[in-house]
Amino acid sequence: MGASLTGMDTPLTTTFPTTAFLGLGAMGFPMAGHLAARSRETGGRTLVWNRTPARAAAHAAEFGSVAATLEEAAGADLIVSCLPTSAEVDGVLDAVRGHLKPGSVWVDCTSGHPDAAPEQRARLLEAGVRFLDAPVSGGTVAAKAGTLTVMVGGPAQEIEAVRPHLAFAGKLVRVGDTGAGFAVKAVNNALLAVNLWAAGEGLAILGLRGVELGAALDVINASSGRSNTTENLIPQRVLTRQFPATFGLGLLAKDAGIALDLAEQARGSAPVIAQVTALYRAASRVIGAQEDHTAALKLIEQWNGVELK
Amino acid sequence: MGASLTGMDTPLTTTFPTTAFLGLGAMGFPMAGHLAARSRETGGRTLVWNRTPARAAAHAAEFGSVAATLEEAAGADLIVSCLPTSAEVDGVLDAVRGHLKPGSVWVDCTSGHPDAAPEQRARLLEAGVRFLDAPVSGGTVAAKAGTLTVMVGGPAQEIEAVRPHLAFAGKLVRVGDTGAGFAVKAVNNALLAVNLWAAGEGLAILGLRGVELGAALDVINASSGRSNTTENLIPQRVLTRQFPATFGLGLLAKDAGIALDLAEQARGSAPVIAQVTALYRAASRVIGAQEDHTAALKLIEQWNGVELK
Amino acid sequence: MGASLTGMDTPLTTTFPTTAFLGLGAMGFPMAGHLAARSRETGGRTLVWNRTPARAAAHAAEFGSVAATLEEAAGADLIVSCLPTSAEVDGVLDAVRGHLKPGSVWVDCTSGHPDAAPEQRARLLEAGVRFLDAPVSGGTVAAKAGTLTVMVGGPAQEIEAVRPHLAFAGKLVRVGDTGAGFAVKAVNNALLAVNLWAAGEGLAILGLRGVELGAALDVINASSGRSNTTENLIPQRVLTRQFPATFGLGLLAKDAGIALDLAEQARGSAPVIAQVTALYRAASRVIGAQEDHTAALKLIEQWNGVELK
Amino acid sequence: MGASLTGMDTPLTTTFPTTAFLGLGAMGFPMAGHLAARSRETGGRTLVWNRTPARAAAHAAEFGSVAATLEEAAGADLIVSCLPTSAEVDGVLDAVRGHLKPGSVWVDCTSGHPDAAPEQRARLLEAGVRFLDAPVSGGTVAAKAGTLTVMVGGPAQEIEAVRPHLAFAGKLVRVGDTGAGFAVKAVNNALLAVNLWAAGEGLAILGLRGVELGAALDVINASSGRSNTTENLIPQRVLTRQFPATFGLGLLAKDAGIALDLAEQARGSAPVIAQVTALYRAASRVIGAQEDHTAALKLIEQWNGVELK
Repeated sequence: MGASLTGMDTPLTTTFPTTAFLGLGAMGFPMAGHLAARSRETGGRTLVWNRTPARAAAHAAEFGSVAATLEEAAGADLIVSCLPTSAEVDGVLDAVRGHLKPGSVWVDCTSGHPDAAPEQRARLLEAGVRFLDAPVSGGTVAAKAGTLTVMVGGPAQEIEAVRPHLAFAGKLVRVGDTGAGFAVKAVNNALLAVNLWAAGEGLAILGLRGVELGAALDVINASSGRSNTTENLIPQRVLTRQFPATFGLGLLAKDAGIALDLAEQARGSAPVIAQVTALYRAASRVIGAQEDHTAALKLIEQWNGVELK
Repeated sequence: MGASLTGMDTPLTTTFPTTAFLGLGAMGFPMAGHLAARSRETGGRTLVWNRTPARAAAHAAEFGSVAATLEEAAGADLIVSCLPTSAEVDGVLDAVRGHLKPGSVWVDCTSGHPDAAPEQRARLLEAGVRFLDAPVSGGTVAAKAGTLTVMVGGPAQEIEAVRPHLAFAGKLVRVGDTGAGFAVKAVNNALLAVNLWAAGEGLAILGLRGVELGAALDVINASSGRSNTTENLIPQRVLTRQFPATFGLGLLAKDAGIALDLAEQARGSAPVIAQVTALYRAASRVIGAQEDHTAALKLIEQWNGVELK
Repeated sequence: MGASLTGMDTPLTTTFPTTAFLGLGAMGFPMAGHLAARSRETGGRTLVWNRTPARAAAHAAEFGSVAATLEEAAGADLIVSCLPTSAEVDGVLDAVRGHLKPGSVWVDCTSGHPDAAPEQRARLLEAGVRFLDAPVSGGTVAAKAGTLTVMVGGPAQEIEAVRPHLAFAGKLVRVGDTGAGFAVKAVNNALLAVNLWAAGEGLAILGLRGVELGAALDVINASSGRSNTTENLIPQRVLTRQFPATFGLGLLAKDAGIALDLAEQARGSAPVIAQVTALYRAASRVIGAQEDHTAALKLIEQWNGVELK
Repeated sequence: MGASLTGMDTPLTTTFPTTAFLGLGAMGFPMAGHLAARSRETGGRTLVWNRTPARAAAHAAEFGSVAATLEEAAGADLIVSCLPTSAEVDGVLDAVRGHLKPGSVWVDCTSGHPDAAPEQRARLLEAGVRFLDAPVSGGTVAAKAGTLTVMVGGPAQEIEAVRPHLAFAGKLVRVGDTGAGFAVKAVNNALLAVNLWAAGEGLAILGLRGVELGAALDVINASSGRSNTTENLIPQRVLTRQFPATFGLGLLAKDAGIALDLAEQARGSAPVIAQVTALYRAASRVIGAQEDHTAALKLIEQWNGVELK
């Protein structure tokens, strides 16, 4: 681990005049907007990069950021990435080799795999760059509002150094060492998946019996069975039949699969997360990986001959 | 259904000077206290009955209610029952035959079986008595505070007649016809069971990886995976290792089983509730039916060789 | 239980000159043929009844039985019934009241519910008739060959009395008291359901990886993972894409549901049978209750984007 | 893949005067005995190696093989390995570097991971050695009898070259390309795991109801629910309460986990295998990874308060 030690010898940057944001998807676009606003407040600037450059140009026009190539963005003092999976992050790391700035910090907000994090950190440390796994929760609403929850894995000192700049965060918590942020995110999303699916099953049972689902949710949400899915997702997305595609079914299946993978690696036993992961894989294939994650409940509807409305 | 029609011909009582409460368990005791206080405010009185009479005497001493025999209580204008299962309610109905007061209303707060409700209602209607299934949620804390959520099945007119007297309710919602209250309660508790179990699995996965569980819950509770179980039950009962026995594991297994039974009756498909019901049956046998429902997670701890603390 | 005792006082018939068969479905039709042949050999005759009389007439023409009304058939010395569920048997019992012959024996080959058996026996005993629950396994092939496996619940003496006449049996075993036959059949079919589903999942995994499924089944059938489903059902019905509808998906879901019900009644824990029952309910709704039970694997095919061939 | 091409240029050995067997565990010991007998018949010799050398000496004494160092064994014309997992095989491959004989064939009978096979083959091809994944099924009984089922992945020509020498095989089938052998074995064992667990649940249900389990198995084994587990494993190992430890619970959990992993890699959906894998992980932790795989049913016994005997 000589490279790592060498990397850790590089002094950590203490000011971040130039920041960069990689990945301007549904989440990244507004997140990068908050980053750009904070940079401007502190006299800095934010470079933005996206695989399809038109989206970077649109961001620059809307938020005063600077559309950049990947190589330019890689030279920033603080880099924030938000990509579909760890595989895309690895691809970007390949591409920026030789363009990184020693002393800088890379904050990866991707919902990545915990096993990828130590490798990514080691690889960046060879260039004197710190890596923090920092996935977010809250969806596009919180991304726009700048109130995302960020769960970060890595050394506390590095996290504190970048904390003031992550303007998209409403709450930012260090949950452990490198990889812990990804692990907590995977488990959070596995719980989302289970709670959502179970609520779908429960409402299908009530629907089959002729109970009015709005009234049922009203009391459940004042009772012990409530969750974020009964309080928010199902009333807003399912009962309305809108299923707005802000977080894809295929990505939720992937995240639940990461949690299952962690269980398996440790020879752990998580039969419910295992079952639910398989059911989301089915839903992703039958309903569509690009559909909103709440559309998984359409599979339950098919199985029960009932519509949740 | 001539009997039923005859029963419905009996005019519904509009004032309830004498109320009664049957079943002074951990929930019923404080609920009956609120009923007694409301009665006193309106110039009435509350009779209380319990299988072990000493508990009724204690209630009278604490709340100014009147300890009564089952036959005396049966003659009240409004009867509220809160017993372990529908079987115990049926037993009480056997015992009070001939002692009921035509025009009165029986509100059953037991977490009963939806199939029992129409039979119980029909049986009481023969004596001119209305039956409402009205299970509650909120636990002993809300029972003491008088802020329980009550989910009621039955005719709206009857519900409105008794609503002002059910002083233990913080929220009372009509969810449908006779039996719908029991159905919604069963589903609520099935969701509680699933959400709790899944959270236990998720935390076990993180524990196996060395993540600090308090920090993980902190971010999950600001994220999409949150539920009543991550916000309240697990921090208060599991991480503290206290598992205070306010709601028994065996009763939660029973409630989840009712939800599963409803699915099966309708030839519905609820694979996650089905699995989780079986896991709670296992936990109930291995950990103990009288233990607090949150102690189900001790089974997950055994399976993963990790303690949730 | 005075009626039962009275019933047991009626001497058990020792010869069965007139036999009757109720229910000439895919299984019952050939079974009744064997019953008729055996009767003829012993100088007796066999009455046959079916809800749609044309089928009884066809049976008489083919097997030399006698098409009869339900009331006529009810007067036989030995009655064998084979109907879809216990509910249909109860309906027939209603219809034959007053037409039964004291001392006779009723052998019900329906895949019935264990809880129905004691009630049906008690009811028939009031008329001096013995009831044996005697479901069969082996499908239409064994029904035609007269090699069915029969699992019987009831007193040994009664079983031995009728054993020589049940010519459709290749193997007939007393498995316990009244209801035990139905219980063992439900569990057998639950195992069939699980083994079939698991084999479907396993082959889908191999199919996704490009393994040739015929070769895979060849070695599995010489290995520890083999079952009746890998040895017979899948090669003959699934890989051929024929799915001949000899045993309906809806009926298998019903049987698995009976096994699950038995577990629940005993507060037992059977998480795999619980999940699989729910999956067959889903398959029954999505693929069709009338389809062959092996067509459940089409659901797995949909979920995995692969065809088992 | 230049190395691989070079490797494939090395002519394949056509005679195998010296064979070697690596790993003399419960399976490998008798398998190596058959290999040695066949070698002797054809004028060759068999080197045997084991991590603990005393076992190799014992083998030499019993079967006329030659105890050897790993380096000596590595120079054989045909090498057969049978180790706990692919990780141990990788370790051995590290150790034999530089000692392999170009043109030889390595047949790995480990229940390995399908992903390991292509890497192991590529690595050996660099030394001009062919690799075949060839896991076996049949347990210690078939290993002793020389009637194992062998499922092989790799080029047909190479398989045919070694087929006559694999004297422990009763049946040897090419199931596909490199890795396919491991995949089929993982799926076979996943089916074993599911069928065994389901049978345990089913018998627990019958046991709770007082049905005699021997009679129940007797009819199930003549019915559609039968499998290798009801026909052999449960009567011989569970009902006898002997649970002879010939195939460890932990290894079966590992194999089911490989099947689950294959499903996840292909974004497949296998909810029952997923659930059962988790249950075996639990059993492995609670009952013991070294216990016989059939001892998993002790967990079901605990959950149901019933003994399977």
